[in-house]
Amino acid sequence: MTSLPSKTIYLKAAADNSIPGPDNFEIRESKVNTADLKEGEIVVTALVMSVDPFLRGQIKTGGSKKVGEAMVGFVAGKVLASKHTDWKENDLIGASANFSTVQILNPSKTIAWNVTDYVTEDKISYAIGVLGMPGSTAYGGLLDVLRPEEGQTIFVSGAAGAVGSMVGQIAKRVKKCTVIGSCGGPEKCKLVKEKFGFDHCIDYKTVSNTQELKAELKKVAPGGIDMYFENVGGMHFEAAFESLRPHGRIAVCGGISQYNKTESDKLKINPLQMIYTFQRIEGFVCIPWLSGKKGNFLKDMYDWVEAGHITVEETVFEGIENWPVAFQGLFTGKNKGKAVVKL
Amino acid sequence: MTSLPSKTIYLKAAADNSIPGPDNFEIRESKVNTADLKEGEIVVTALVMSVDPFLRGQIKTGGSKKVGEAMVGFVAGKVLASKHTDWKENDLIGASANFSTVQILNPSKTIAWNVTDYVTEDKISYAIGVLGMPGSTAYGGLLDVLRPEEGQTIFVSGAAGAVGSMVGQIAKRVKKCTVIGSCGGPEKCKLVKEKFGFDHCIDYKTVSNTQELKAELKKVAPGGIDMYFENVGGMHFEAAFESLRPHGRIAVCGGISQYNKTESDKLKINPLQMIYTFQRIEGFVCIPWLSGKKGNFLKDMYDWVEAGHITVEETVFEGIENWPVAFQGLFTGKNKGKAVVKL
Repeated sequence: MTSLPSKTIYLKAAADNSIPGPDNFEIRESKVNTADLKEGEIVVTALVMSVDPFLRGQIKTGGSKKVGEAMVGFVAGKVLASKHTDWKENDLIGASANFSTVQILNPSKTIAWNVTDYVTEDKISYAIGVLGMPGSTAYGGLLDVLRPEEGQTIFVSGAAGAVGSMVGQIAKRVKKCTVIGSCGGPEKCKLVKEKFGFDHCIDYKTVSNTQELKAELKKVAPGGIDMYFENVGGMHFEAAFESLRPHGRIAVCGGISQYNKTESDKLKINPLQMIYTFQRIEGFVCIPWLSGKKGNFLKDMYDWVEAGHITVEETVFEGIENWPVAFQGLFTGKNKGKAVVKL
Repeated sequence: MTSLPSKTIYLKAAADNSIPGPDNFEIRESKVNTADLKEGEIVVTALVMSVDPFLRGQIKTGGSKKVGEAMVGFVAGKVLASKHTDWKENDLIGASANFSTVQILNPSKTIAWNVTDYVTEDKISYAIGVLGMPGSTAYGGLLDVLRPEEGQTIFVSGAAGAVGSMVGQIAKRVKKCTVIGSCGGPEKCKLVKEKFGFDHCIDYKTVSNTQELKAELKKVAPGGIDMYFENVGGMHFEAAFESLRPHGRIAVCGGISQYNKTESDKLKINPLQMIYTFQRIEGFVCIPWLSGKKGNFLKDMYDWVEAGHITVEETVFEGIENWPVAFQGLFTGKNKGKAVVKL
C-alpha cells in the first residue's frame, strides 16, 4: 500500500444567490502516496461524506472556499494506517477533512473523533449524523444553550432536518418538553409528528409572513414558547421572538432560508421585550461538544439511540459523484433527516 | 405618634408619546395613622425619592399605573416604628414603595434592603443610587450578564447616567477593561472621561444613524467591542450589534430613546452573525442582585465606593414638589449621574 487511488470534490464555480448544484463542483482523481506517512499522520479511507447546509456560505464569492480548492466537510471512515499515538489501523473515525475518498491527515490539526466504540462499519454514517456534527449541534444547543426544564415548550424549525429532528426528539423523550416543529409540506410534518414524536408541527409553506406564523404558533402554544431552536431564519426568527415567554431563550444555529441570498435579511426585533423577561438570544456552533470540551456528547447520544429516544432518519445517496445532487437537495427541501453520501 | 402628615405623588394624566412633566402628576396630602400598625409592618419616613427612566413605561395609556393611582418607585429613608422582626426603629432602608413622604409598608411584600451598615443619613441617597436599583443594575448586568475579562472592550450607552456611569467605572477600575461611553453633548462627555475615567466617549448628538455611530465606534475600537451595556436603544443597539467581536455579548437593560414613543422601534439585526461567533444578547433587571439572591451587591459596591473606584455623581432636586421636574430632566438630558429628590 504505497499509492492509493482517490477522488476529491473541488469547487468549480461560486454560487451567490442561486441554489448550488452539480455545475458548481467537479471531481478529480489523484493518487495518495502513503509510503512517506509522517509522524502524527494517518491514512483515512472515507466510507461516507456528509451533506450539510453550513457549507453553503463558504462557496459564495468572497467566501472561505475559493474556486479550484478542494471542498472540506465532515467525513467518516476507517483508518488504514497510523503514525499518530491516539489512532490505530481499523479505527473508525469522524473528522472535518477534505471530501476525498482516500487522504492523509493529521487528526491533531483538525476536529477528529473516534467512534470505534460506538458503531460498526454498517452504521458509520452515524459518525456524520447523530454522533457527528448534527448530533453535537442538537446536543449542545439544546442542553447547554437552551437548558430545557421539564414541561417547558420548545419550537424547533427545520424539524425534519438532521439537527432539528434530533433537537425535538431529545427535548420530547429525554427532557419531557412540549415540542412544536416547523417544516415544509404535509409529508415532512407527518414524519416529524409520527416518527420523531413532536407534539405539533407547522407546515411553514401554509403561511407567508411573521404575523401568520406567529398566529399558527399561538394556536398550538397559546401561552407562548420557552425556547426556540433556530435553523431557518427570516420570519421564523421574528415570529419565535415575539412568541417568547418570560425567561425565554433562542439558540441561533442556522438560517437556511437566507443561505442562497447574496446578503442575509436583517430581522426586526424589539430588544426592550427582553428586559423584564430576562430573555436571551445566543449563537453557537457544535465545536465545544463535538471536541469533547463540554458535555458528554458521544456517550449520551449513543445511549439515547440505544434506548430508542432518538430515531435516525437518513436520505442516502450513493457515490461521491452524487454529492452535488445531495447538497442541492438541502435547499430544494428534498432530503429528510440526515443527508448522507455512501462511498 | 399616631397620625403623621404625608404627601404622595399620584398619576394625574397618562403620557404616551410626549415627554412627561408636572402636568402628568399631582401631589396629595393625607394622614398616616400609625397607631394600628399590624404585625410585619413598619412605618417609613422617606428622606429621598428616586427618579428613574423605567417608570416611563408605566404611565402610558394601558401601562401598569392607572390615572389616579399613587406612583410607586424607589425611596430611601428611616424606619420610625417596626412590627417586623428584621427591622427596628432608626434603621435606614431602601425600598420599592409609594412615593409618599410617610407610609406604612410590609417589607416582606416588596423589595426592601437594609443599608444601616453602609450609610449614614447624609448619604442616604446612596440607597437609591450606588446601593440601590441603579447600582445593582450596573453590578448584575456587568458582572453576571456581560462577564467581563481583563483587557476586553466594553461600550456603555447612557454613560453619564446613574447606571451607565457605574458600569463604566466598575469595568475600568475593577475589571481593567477598555471603556467606551456614549452620551449627549460635550459637557457630559467631559464628565464621563474625566470624572468616571472612561477611555473614550462618543457624543451621540454628532451622529445621526446606525452607520455613523458604527463608524465612530470603529475609530476608538478598530477591532470591535466585546461587550455592550444597553441603556438607550435605537441606533445604539444596531451599531453595537454590528460592532461585536467573536464571543461578544449585549446586556439589554433599557432603551431610553424609545420611552416617549407610543410603540418602540423594531431594530434590525442579522442573527446569523451570532452563530460562529457565539454571540449573545440578554435582557435583565436588577431584582436578583438587589434582593441578594445573586452576588454580593451591597458589600461589593460599598467597598468599591470606599476604595475610590466608584465616584458618585448626583443631580439633586429639593422637595417632593420637584419630583415631576426631576423626572422630566431624564428625557431632556438635563440630569447628570443619579437624579435624586431630597425631602
